[in-house]
Amino acid sequence: MSAATSTGTLFLVPVSLGESAWDVTHPAQVRNQACELTHFVVENAKTARAELKRLEHPKPMRELDIRELPASPSAEELEALLAPLLAGNDLGLMSEAGCPAVADPGALLVGAAHRHGIRVTPLTGPSSLLLALMGSGLNGQRFAFHGYLPVDEKERARRLRELEAESRRQDQTQLFIETPYRNDRMFDALLANCDGHTRLCVACDLSTAEEWIGTDTIGAWRKRERPAITKRPTIFLLLAG
Amino acid sequence: MSAATSTGTLFLVPVSLGESAWDVTHPAQVRNQACELTHFVVENAKTARAELKRLEHPKPMRELDIRELPASPSAEELEALLAPLLAGNDLGLMSEAGCPAVADPGALLVGAAHRHGIRVTPLTGPSSLLLALMGSGLNGQRFAFHGYLPVDEKERARRLRELEAESRRQDQTQLFIETPYRNDRMFDALLANCDGHTRLCVACDLSTAEEWIGTDTIGAWRKRERPAITKRPTIFLLLAG
Repeated sequence: MSAATSTGTLFLVPVSLGESAWDVTHPAQVRNQACELTHFVVENAKTARAELKRLEHPKPMRELDIRELPASPSAEELEALLAPLLAGNDLGLMSEAGCPAVADPGALLVGAAHRHGIRVTPLTGPSSLLLALMGSGLNGQRFAFHGYLPVDEKERARRLRELEAESRRQDQTQLFIETPYRNDRMFDALLANCDGHTRLCVACDLSTAEEWIGTDTIGAWRKRERPAITKRPTIFLLLAG
Repeated sequence: MSAATSTGTLFLVPVSLGESAWDVTHPAQVRNQACELTHFVVENAKTARAELKRLEHPKPMRELDIRELPASPSAEELEALLAPLLAGNDLGLMSEAGCPAVADPGALLVGAAHRHGIRVTPLTGPSSLLLALMGSGLNGQRFAFHGYLPVDEKERARRLRELEAESRRQDQTQLFIETPYRNDRMFDALLANCDGHTRLCVACDLSTAEEWIGTDTIGAWRKRERPAITKRPTIFLLLAG
């Protein structure tokens, strides 16, 4: 499309997952690219500014054009956020943590950019989902991410059994997340509802000094010391045995 | 487990996806960690040595202990490969490209490490699946990776319609791959079998200078210029409209 020659590029800028130096989480050229940008669309302006400081962005934060992406943006709001790109400026998309447009609403902006023929460039950086999958030892050749499961106890139990059945049918690793203060209840629900032979991985504080990854069968988890997951960012992964 | 105090750590070392400098794909501390290792288990010794040279590993390649992971390793073969870890040495796991234990057999070694209580540390680096998902603009809050689809034309058509129906039911992005010389046949099969409103992303040569990402509806792809995907490493993603 002719637009691509005159419009800017939408860079997808990963954000650290917790306390760590940027040279643990970001390739130098990814950091350099982020530091050349002056226009950003972000999930949360405060955490985005903190991340840009961590990346040692050379400009004063007040000189950067940082706009928040609404959780459910309208078509008009998406168009307005693309304005810097349509005017020929590059734009950085950042989420609160990890890779933008994965497990957050950023994909809507990326989709709108594609409709305008704007070039989209995803940059390499930390993803808790991917690190958890790698570290789990569960099937990395077939997997699915389901976001949050229902909070209601009965609904959650039903959903866990459904995911376990689907995992068995497709030999597919199931990934999901929980609000950190509910992690212990999720763990209890897994032990209560899943088969003893199903394997469960609990992956906490990935890419930080506190990183902890444990994989075992549900039967073994029932006898093991409870993992310290209270209020820690955690990915849960299961694979039916 | 007491073993964890005396055994080495299994580091999961990402590998570049194509021609690019290591500071585009690897955080400096990830590269430094890889360069401290002298024991490796890899998918392919030749490509692993090339990657270690690219990362500027300081040791002569002949001094490194590099062993290949069989495609379907037996329990005994896995035990033998863990020997350096059990003897207290750190070990690096590498695939042919991208993140080890994702879309390759490396997860079997990671699983065996967990059974011994060996610490597993996944390192941040390039993943074509994750970059494709970010760059696609398709749903990043629910997605599934299915590996290779059937080669037989009728079987592949049936599977594509199945994945599209599942995508519609769960609002789930479906990711899959193809042997590069069959990419054009896969593209034709997608245009022939999917609904005009389904969105298709084609993501090629990610993280390299030749990177190209296009997302459009199947209906629009039928009228657009055919993307140049012949023999290029490509991820296909679809989301029912």
